Amino acid sequence: MNKGTLQVTTSAQKELIDITHKVSTTLNQCSSHTGILYLFNPHTTAGLTINEGADPDVQTDIISGLSAIVPQLNFRHAEGNSPAHIMTLLTGSSLTIQVENGQLHLGTWQRVFFCEYDGPRTRSLNWKFLPDL
Amino acid sequence: MNKGTLQVTTSAQKELIDITHKVSTTLNQCSSHTGILYLFNPHTTAGLTINEGADPDVQTDIISGLSAIVPQLNFRHAEGNSPAHIMTLLTGSSLTIQVENGQLHLGTWQRVFFCEYDGPRTRSLNWKFLPDL
Amino acid sequence: MNKGTLQVTTSAQKELIDITHKVSTTLNQCSSHTGILYLFNPHTTAGLTINEGADPDVQTDIISGLSAIVPQLNFRHAEGNSPAHIMTLLTGSSLTIQVENGQLHLGTWQRVFFCEYDGPRTRSLNWKFLPDL
Repeated sequence: MNKGTLQVTTSAQKELIDITHKVSTTLNQCSSHTGILYLFNPHTTAGLTINEGADPDVQTDIISGLSAIVPQLNFRHAEGNSPAHIMTLLTGSSLTIQVENGQLHLGTWQRVFFCEYDGPRTRSLNWKFLPDL
Repeated sequence: MNKGTLQVTTSAQKELIDITHKVSTTLNQCSSHTGILYLFNPHTTAGLTINEGADPDVQTDIISGLSAIVPQLNFRHAEGNSPAHIMTLLTGSSLTIQVENGQLHLGTWQRVFFCEYDGPRTRSLNWKFLPDL
Repeated sequence: MNKGTLQVTTSAQKELIDITHKVSTTLNQCSSHTGILYLFNPHTTAGLTINEGADPDVQTDIISGLSAIVPQLNFRHAEGNSPAHIMTLLTGSSLTIQVENGQLHLGTWQRVFFCEYDGPRTRSLNWKFLPDL
């Protein structure tokens, strides 16, 4: 099967969770070792990004930075989570990652992160593998 | 035909317009019911994003938030629309969306939005469908 | 060969570099004139974007804007480049561009930019071409 879903359980209101290992395991189910992996986040208060994973302080700093960047205005949306919707726009909802020899073809310091902006929750992600011709 | 263009007419300087229905209708022209839909915005003061569509206040709050985030500096670009160019970078110029059974495979609350940052204008979008192998 | 790498040498701490011509030359090596070009940045303090290339002041204004948007907080990451990691999240790490008749299918004013946020450095980018079926 070249597609499926992944579960991610978050434990804070805002956090980056390294899902690289979880994403990599999907490649075992794929029909080929070379192609593109497409990852899609179907939620509107969360995102997907690629950034440094070596020092966990980077993840903390990204959340601190985003919290400072997105203002607490007198928003109209009654649920009160408009900043999370704005962070979702800033981050983006999907990733495409090259796959070579059955591995995610990432840079030395890169890891794949699920960005929770309105947790804690259990979240589901969709993935799809596009094998090379 | 697995590719084409879409027209979007905007009516404010800054607004998010729900184009989900318009994007969905392109799928009727495609050669298959399963694949990836690629959507590209060829403009430099507008973007494409996926976010909540149930409450229109979210769209208003996103525009309020972006207007507060991007400062009115003493910019050099003589056209005076540098904030719109910056919002374009923050939003992104393309989307890739999974297609299953001839439908956009979106989350429960997700809709596809055209983000106008320097309107009102008539805008054109490019789309392309990549059928599964 | 439908994949390869590109080198980009940056000369400032923060700058946008127009890599459209460099990216276009990869298309000469591809097996087809029609498809999708995927461009991936394997670095965690740099990004890829599409924006206006006609007036170089737009590039300068984007860097000024991002520098004003991302605050200089008391960040924890000891390397001191957390703002560059945050700008990377805001910008994104990959681009997908339609290819028609052996050319990048961009809008009139659009150019492809490498975004350096922690330079100067020599950077490497990965590209991959997905020919149409």
